[in-house]
Amino acid sequence: MSYIAPTKDMEFVINELADLNGVTALPGFSDATPDLVSAVLEEAGKLASEVLAPLNRIGDEQGSKLEGDIVKTPDGWKEAYEQFISGGWNGLAFSPDLGGQGLPWLVSTAVQEMWHAANMSFGLCPLLTQGAIEAIELHGSDELKAAYLEKMVSGEWTGTMNLTEPQAGSDLSAVRAKAEPNGDHFLISGQKIFITYGDHELTENIIHLVLARTPDAPEGTKGISLFIVPKHILNADGTPGERNDVRTVSLEHKLGIHASPTAVLSYGDNGGAEGYLVGEENRGLVYMFTMMNLARHAVGVEGIAIAERAYQQALNFSKERVQGRALDGSAERVTIIHHPDVQRMLMTMRSQIEAMRAVAYLSASAFDKSLHHPDEEERKRQQGLMELLTPIVKGWSTEVGNDVAYLGVQVHGGMGFIEETGAAQHSRDARITTIYEGTTGIQAGDLVGRKVLRDGGAVARAVIAQMRADCQALSGTDGLNSNKQSLEQGIGALEKSTEWILQSVSDDPELPAAAASPYLQLWGTVVGGWQLARASMIASDKLGSGGDDNFYKAKINSARFYAANILPQALAFEIAVTEGSQTVLEFDTA
Amino acid sequence: MSYIAPTKDMEFVINELADLNGVTALPGFSDATPDLVSAVLEEAGKLASEVLAPLNRIGDEQGSKLEGDIVKTPDGWKEAYEQFISGGWNGLAFSPDLGGQGLPWLVSTAVQEMWHAANMSFGLCPLLTQGAIEAIELHGSDELKAAYLEKMVSGEWTGTMNLTEPQAGSDLSAVRAKAEPNGDHFLISGQKIFITYGDHELTENIIHLVLARTPDAPEGTKGISLFIVPKHILNADGTPGERNDVRTVSLEHKLGIHASPTAVLSYGDNGGAEGYLVGEENRGLVYMFTMMNLARHAVGVEGIAIAERAYQQALNFSKERVQGRALDGSAERVTIIHHPDVQRMLMTMRSQIEAMRAVAYLSASAFDKSLHHPDEEERKRQQGLMELLTPIVKGWSTEVGNDVAYLGVQVHGGMGFIEETGAAQHSRDARITTIYEGTTGIQAGDLVGRKVLRDGGAVARAVIAQMRADCQALSGTDGLNSNKQSLEQGIGALEKSTEWILQSVSDDPELPAAAASPYLQLWGTVVGGWQLARASMIASDKLGSGGDDNFYKAKINSARFYAANILPQALAFEIAVTEGSQTVLEFDTA
Repeated sequence: MSYIAPTKDMEFVINELADLNGVTALPGFSDATPDLVSAVLEEAGKLASEVLAPLNRIGDEQGSKLEGDIVKTPDGWKEAYEQFISGGWNGLAFSPDLGGQGLPWLVSTAVQEMWHAANMSFGLCPLLTQGAIEAIELHGSDELKAAYLEKMVSGEWTGTMNLTEPQAGSDLSAVRAKAEPNGDHFLISGQKIFITYGDHELTENIIHLVLARTPDAPEGTKGISLFIVPKHILNADGTPGERNDVRTVSLEHKLGIHASPTAVLSYGDNGGAEGYLVGEENRGLVYMFTMMNLARHAVGVEGIAIAERAYQQALNFSKERVQGRALDGSAERVTIIHHPDVQRMLMTMRSQIEAMRAVAYLSASAFDKSLHHPDEEERKRQQGLMELLTPIVKGWSTEVGNDVAYLGVQVHGGMGFIEETGAAQHSRDARITTIYEGTTGIQAGDLVGRKVLRDGGAVARAVIAQMRADCQALSGTDGLNSNKQSLEQGIGALEKSTEWILQSVSDDPELPAAAASPYLQLWGTVVGGWQLARASMIASDKLGSGGDDNFYKAKINSARFYAANILPQALAFEIAVTEGSQTVLEFDTA
Repeated sequence: MSYIAPTKDMEFVINELADLNGVTALPGFSDATPDLVSAVLEEAGKLASEVLAPLNRIGDEQGSKLEGDIVKTPDGWKEAYEQFISGGWNGLAFSPDLGGQGLPWLVSTAVQEMWHAANMSFGLCPLLTQGAIEAIELHGSDELKAAYLEKMVSGEWTGTMNLTEPQAGSDLSAVRAKAEPNGDHFLISGQKIFITYGDHELTENIIHLVLARTPDAPEGTKGISLFIVPKHILNADGTPGERNDVRTVSLEHKLGIHASPTAVLSYGDNGGAEGYLVGEENRGLVYMFTMMNLARHAVGVEGIAIAERAYQQALNFSKERVQGRALDGSAERVTIIHHPDVQRMLMTMRSQIEAMRAVAYLSASAFDKSLHHPDEEERKRQQGLMELLTPIVKGWSTEVGNDVAYLGVQVHGGMGFIEETGAAQHSRDARITTIYEGTTGIQAGDLVGRKVLRDGGAVARAVIAQMRADCQALSGTDGLNSNKQSLEQGIGALEKSTEWILQSVSDDPELPAAAASPYLQLWGTVVGGWQLARASMIASDKLGSGGDDNFYKAKINSARFYAANILPQALAFEIAVTEGSQTVLEFDTA
C-alpha cells in the first residue's frame, strides 16, 4: 500500500510536454529551473511516501469524528499537518510577499498530485485553503488580506468554501443564507452542507468563505455576496479570540474520503456569525467563478493522483501474486503480471494516467502563462487554452480516474473486495471526484456552453489545428505511423463533433446539452492521445542518447497502446454526439 | 430506496424474445403458460418489494457478524428467510420429485433477478444452495441424494461451495485441502476462504461442498475430489446431529454485500471433518465445471439486478430533486429529470439493462431447451448457444452492471456519496460481481478459448449468421433504419474480430488472450443490440393493437438510444482486439 511519487514521469511531462523552459522565462519564475523543480519534487515525494501515504488506511478506518463539540481527525493527522506546513508546502504557489514559495502552478500541480495520491483525505485540507486564499487575494480588501492571508498561506489557519445548502446543490441561484449589516460587519445566518474540512482541530482557526444574501439583494445569482466568517473572531492583535456563531451540526457518513470531515455548518443560531464582506456586494458568484478554474483543475488532478496510487498498488500485487500458468504450456506457476489480460489492465491504467497527467500539467502551464506572460496576445491565447482544458481535466480525468481505480480492484481479484487490501479504498475515495466542484455533467455543460459555443468555436478550432500540426509531425518519426492514423481519426472525430455542436444549437438548444457528456470524453480522449503522441516523438528522439532508454521505451509503448486501445473510442463518442443526442431527447420524462 | 419488480419488461422478454412458447412446449413444462408465469412473477415481485427490499439497507449497515462461535445475520433476516422458503421459492426450478416447483430456468432467472435486485446479500444464500443442489443431483450417489436433496430444495438446509484456498484464488489446480479415507467416509482438513454463507443461523444445517485431495491423488487439476461435509453430521434418522469438525475462523470485512457472511472455514482442526465423496475420486473439478455455467449465469443476472435497482432509485430521485432551470429560459426551477444530461444517464442505464436482461433470459431459455428438447440436434444447438452466451452474460452484464450502478450514484450528485442515500451501496454490492465465479478476465479467456477457438468458431459463426438474418428483417420496419445500420456495423465488427481471433492464435497463442476482454465486451454490446432490435421490431408491430402503447414506444426508444449511443462502441472494441492486442504484449513485465 505504499506510494512512490512518479517523479521521473512528472519531470518528463513538466520539462518536455508542459514547457517548463517557457514558464521559467516568465517574470518572477527565473528560479524555477529544472534542477530546482527536480529537488522540490524529490522532497515532496519523500513527505508523500513517508508521512502521508502510511496514514491513508488509518484515516479511512478511523475517519474524522464529531465528539461533542470537537471534530477529531484520525491518529497522526495533526503531526502530519504540522510537518506539512513547517516544510512550507502549503504556500508553494503563493507569492513570497505572503510567505509563499512563489513557484509556478505547473510545479504546484505535480506536488498536489503527490499529496492526493498519498492521502487524498489529507490533501483536501490544503486544497480548500488554497481556494480560500485565492478568493481573498483576488477580491478582498487590503485590511482583510492583512488580517488573514499570511496565516493561511503558511497553513497556520485553514480555509473552507461554503456554497451548498440543502435545497441547492449545484444551483447556487437558490442560496438562502442571510447576511444582515451590523456596523462594520455583517451577521451571517443559515445552514451550509458538504463543507470539506468545515471543522477540525488541526489549527487554531478556520476561515470560512460563505455565500449569503444581503437584505435587499436581487433574487437569483446576481444577489449573492461573499463573506469571510472566521471560526474564531480575531482579537485586536490579530490572534484568534472568541468563538464565532458557527456550529458543526454533524459530519456526513460518506462512501469514501472518511478522514476528510464533511460538515454541516449552522451559522447564526445565537444571533448571527460575524462576517466580513469580500469585495462588493452581490458579486459573490462572480468571485467564485474566478477561482473555479483552479479548484476544478485541482480536482481533476485528484483523479489522476488516485489513479496513480491504484496503479502502483495493482502493479505491485501483480508482481507478487502467483496464480495460474503461462500460455506457453510450462508447468511452472507464474505471477499474474505474466497473464496478457492483466497486462491489458495495467497498460490501460498506465497509459491513461500518463495521458491525463500530460494534459493537466499542460493546462497548469497555460495557467501560469495566462497570468504572467509579458505579451497580452499570448496571455489571452494561453487563457483560452486553460479555460478550454479545465472542464476536460476535471470531467475526463476524474471519470477515467474512477475507471482506473476500478481496474485496480479488478487486478486484485477477490482480494480487491476485502477492505484490508486497500484497493477498494482508492475506488471509494475516487468516487467523489466526479461529483464535487461540479459534476461531470456540469463540466460538460461548461465545456459546450462557455468554452465552445460562446466564442463560436474559436479556441476549440485553434486547439484542433495545433493538434493537426503536431500529428503531421508524427510522420517523420519511425514506428509512429499507426499512432498517427489513430490520432488523425480521433482529431477528425473531434472536429466533426465540434462543428456539429456549433450547428445543432440553432436547431434545438437542448441538442448540445444532450451531447455534452460524450463530447467532453471525446475531448479528453483525443487531447490525451495528442500529448502521448508528442511524448512518444520526444522519447524516440532521445532513445540511445545516454538517458534512461527503458523509460523512453515505456513512453513509446504507452503511446502505442493508447493509440490502438483507447483512442479509437473517439469514433464511438462522435456517433454518440452526432447521432445519439437526438435519441436522448426522445426520453419520456413521464 | 424501494424496488418494484419490472414485471412488464420481464414478461415481454420472456414471452417475445426468449420464446416462452417454445419452452412451455418442452416435456414437463406444459404448466408454465404465460398466465402462470405472470402469476409467479407477480407473487415473487411482492415478496421482493415488501419483504426483501426493505431489509437491504439494514443488512448493509449491520452486516453479518461472528460473535463467539455464532454467525449472526442482520435483524429481520431469519424471518425473511422463513417466509422465503415457506413460499416454496427455494426450489422453483428443481424437480417436483424433490419437492421443487419444476419451472423452467427461464422463469427462475427472472425471479432470481428480483431477489438480487431487492437484496443481493440475501439472494446469495439460495443462489449458493442452488449450486450445491445441482452438484449433488448431477453427481451424488442415490444415498447422498436421499439424505440431502429434499431438505436443500425446500431450503430447510442451505448449501455452500468451498473451492478457494488462500494460496489458490481462481487457480484450482493449487488446491491443498486433504481427504483421508476413514471407513465409509473421509476425514477432511484444510482451510477454505471466501465461502459465501459459509456459516449462519438461518437453518439447522449447512451442507458444504468441498474440493480436496485424497492421499494418492495426482497433482494438479486431475487430483481433486468433491465432498459433502455437513456442518452437523446427520443422525441415523436423517436429522442434524453433532457438530462436524469445521470451524468458522473469521468473516471478511468487505466493500459490499455486508450482510452476506463471507467465511474463512477451517476443516479438521480436531482430527478431520466427516466428508462423503460425491461421484468418483479425482473428478471434482469436472463436476464443478458442469455447474459453472449455471452459477456464472446467475452472477450475470446479479449484475442486471443491481443495475435495475440502481436505475429505479436514480429515476425516482431525478423526478423529485429540484435543481437548475430548463434550457428554454423559463424562470421556474425544474426536477433534474428535465436536464438532457440526466436523461442521457438514465437512458444509458435503462437501455443497457433491457439489453442485458434480454440476453440473459435468452440464454436461460437455451439452457432449458438444451436439457429438455426432444430433438438431439436442437439440444446440441441450444447448448452451444447457452455455452457461448454464459461468459458473456457473466462478464458483460456484471461490468455494465457496475457502470450502471456508478451512474446511479452520479445521478444523485453529492447525495450519492452519502451512504444513507443507498445509491452507493448498490455500487459497492455490484463490485463483487465482476470478480467471483471467475473474474471478467477469466470469463473472457473462457469465451475465447473454450467457446470460440475450441470448435473453430462454429457456434460463434452460427450466432453471427442468425444476427445477420434478424438484422435484415429490420429493413422492413419503419423507423428502424438507423438501428439497422448501427447493428450491421456492430455485427461486422464482431465478425472481423472473431475471424481475427481464429487467425491470430497460430501467430502467437498469447494474442487471443490479450484480445479476450474487449472481445467479450464486443460480444455483449452486439448481442445486446441484436436483442433490442428484435424487441423494437416486435414492439412496433404491436403498437396500436390495444396493448400498452407507452411501453412499446419506450422499447423502441431504448433500442434507438442503444443503437446510436452504445452499440457504436463495437467499433472501438474491434480495433482494440485486432490492432490493440499486439501492443498489450509489448508490456514490459520488469
